[in-house]
Amino acid sequence: MTEILIREDLPGNIARLTLNAPGSLNALSDAMLAALNVQLTALQTDTTTRVVILRGAGKVFCAGHDLKEMQAGRASADKGAAYFADLFARCADVMMSITTLPQPVIAQAHGIATAAGCQLLATCDLAVAATGTRFGVNGVNIGLFCSTPMVALTRNVAPKHAFEMLITGEFIDTARAYDIGLINRTATPETLDDVTMHLAQTIATKLGSAVRIGKKAFYDQSGMSLADAYAHTSAVMVENMLQRDTDEGITAFIEKRHPDWHR
Amino acid sequence: MTEILIREDLPGNIARLTLNAPGSLNALSDAMLAALNVQLTALQTDTTTRVVILRGAGKVFCAGHDLKEMQAGRASADKGAAYFADLFARCADVMMSITTLPQPVIAQAHGIATAAGCQLLATCDLAVAATGTRFGVNGVNIGLFCSTPMVALTRNVAPKHAFEMLITGEFIDTARAYDIGLINRTATPETLDDVTMHLAQTIATKLGSAVRIGKKAFYDQSGMSLADAYAHTSAVMVENMLQRDTDEGITAFIEKRHPDWHR
Amino acid sequence: MTEILIREDLPGNIARLTLNAPGSLNALSDAMLAALNVQLTALQTDTTTRVVILRGAGKVFCAGHDLKEMQAGRASADKGAAYFADLFARCADVMMSITTLPQPVIAQAHGIATAAGCQLLATCDLAVAATGTRFGVNGVNIGLFCSTPMVALTRNVAPKHAFEMLITGEFIDTARAYDIGLINRTATPETLDDVTMHLAQTIATKLGSAVRIGKKAFYDQSGMSLADAYAHTSAVMVENMLQRDTDEGITAFIEKRHPDWHR
Repeated sequence: MTEILIREDLPGNIARLTLNAPGSLNALSDAMLAALNVQLTALQTDTTTRVVILRGAGKVFCAGHDLKEMQAGRASADKGAAYFADLFARCADVMMSITTLPQPVIAQAHGIATAAGCQLLATCDLAVAATGTRFGVNGVNIGLFCSTPMVALTRNVAPKHAFEMLITGEFIDTARAYDIGLINRTATPETLDDVTMHLAQTIATKLGSAVRIGKKAFYDQSGMSLADAYAHTSAVMVENMLQRDTDEGITAFIEKRHPDWHR
Repeated sequence: MTEILIREDLPGNIARLTLNAPGSLNALSDAMLAALNVQLTALQTDTTTRVVILRGAGKVFCAGHDLKEMQAGRASADKGAAYFADLFARCADVMMSITTLPQPVIAQAHGIATAAGCQLLATCDLAVAATGTRFGVNGVNIGLFCSTPMVALTRNVAPKHAFEMLITGEFIDTARAYDIGLINRTATPETLDDVTMHLAQTIATKLGSAVRIGKKAFYDQSGMSLADAYAHTSAVMVENMLQRDTDEGITAFIEKRHPDWHR
Repeated sequence: MTEILIREDLPGNIARLTLNAPGSLNALSDAMLAALNVQLTALQTDTTTRVVILRGAGKVFCAGHDLKEMQAGRASADKGAAYFADLFARCADVMMSITTLPQPVIAQAHGIATAAGCQLLATCDLAVAATGTRFGVNGVNIGLFCSTPMVALTRNVAPKHAFEMLITGEFIDTARAYDIGLINRTATPETLDDVTMHLAQTIATKLGSAVRIGKKAFYDQSGMSLADAYAHTSAVMVENMLQRDTDEGITAFIEKRHPDWHR
């Protein structure tokens, strides 16, 4: 039996999750969301893995929800209301668990990243995309406005850029996605794996405790007032300073040598 | 008598409002604000119109408040305090009613979009501008900092970009406005009408209920925490899914045919 | 004795503060933070100064905290916990006092603006940087995630841009800093003083009361809902309108003459 989500543990404590339903353009079906939930839950307490890469098998990254499965959900007394509510709740849980994951998550996109697939990419902490990728929140074209993808999109790009994508349903290309801040780096299709892996390796060499502390603080402080954000992050800095390995890291820097981190 | 604000109902359920006081650079005078209020109030319950275009007659889009009228307002016992408070409240009401309008609103700018005119453009959901347009929040040059225009501007562009425009009173050009996310598309003065109309037509072909649901959700979720935003938009998605025409839209997509929307 | 922070009062009511500890790359040591606190406290009630420039002596703008001093702080019964908490609180106070200063503050950067030095630049209302400057929040490289610098950085640039800088510890160059909105203007090392001074002079010619009112309103309204922000700034606009010099400024503009401002 082929797994719908493949996890590889690569050298350097890098985990790579590959959406593996190319026949459905790696749709976020019930099964895919369940598989993502299992893997992300495992990663929450995984102290070995330092970085996660999320990519898609086949010709695209992810084209969003599984529309056929959604339509089948209408065959109930409530015309699908309870199923849809549960589906969007499960999907939101997967998205939010990426944000709360202790490890940074890098989306590696190619081909298509649309609707909930664009949401998945926007939700990841970082994103790398191949030239030729089409990005869109195009549900409006079939009468289903991308309201949940909008949550991730509007927290990443300027309002007019987000509204245009949402209301026109048009795609943007990789260069435009880079210009508006939706992705961090671009690569050719041939170099996409390597460019993403290089970024992951860069992060994997950092002190794990500092990365965990920092990612959590990044999202925790984001909605706070300036005074609250400084009070919170100042406490985080003290916690960080009191780590044994941070002491060693700073001393090594002053002494111009490599740190001896216990990690 | 010439109307100060012309409403045209164009093919495709597109309403076009033209600020028509070219002698005062389409200033947002008491009369203009009242006319805008009348039209926007009518559009709030207009179920036929799908998109609104807002443009200016003559050489410019809009140069902001009517300074002569404002100065005349000082001839009262309170030196204009009550009049000014009322004026800014009425102006803010017009701006906020653009945001709460069920239809997307596209600003079509040329020549000048300054002070409250730049606010008007920034407030619209989308903006198209001709090359050669000058954008500014230049009240500081005459001693009146653009504090209310700032509300719209800072919700559209990065803080340092907004602060620079506000504090220097300098203009930016169309290319820069595009780069910082203040406008969505550019056109030549000759193609401006067509480019804006094409964008409006693109939106007008979408399912109206999905557009209405989506625009409302766009602004409703914008200040929420991630969890609240997902809870809210998940409920919105369920509502959207349960529309008859959305069911048809998704089915038609799966069956690779055009949807038969009742709208 | 050489001053660690030099204040110059330049023609046009421009104050220039120069971080003057080039041997430590203008580190934000206890002494530097104390000197900044003294000068910023004085400027809070300085009604003559209209603009403040903040730059660094020697080869760089500022490379962040004084790591040797911080490590020395560990030699206490609590391993530095109380000292670090106090240090980050003092540093945050300096940053927030730049935001609450009545005068606009322009960072003038060259060479290096890293960690708390990048925070200092991001905190300033405006920033000018020389080509060849390296910007980074690179504490993660030594095991100390830049959590407090993150507060300023994430309030200036897009989330993915901020996260990439924070988690990779990599530098960005002047062109990239301009593209992502971290700085307002660029100059060559030779023209840096002049370009910054020109920007300061532009601001210094504005009506001081309007600038003060505007800068305060800029930050006050930033986290508010649209309705609250308009209620607040409408009141600010009325206050601004009722200033004698604003009346004169508008009248002069209408009469096409220079205003006779008492200031």
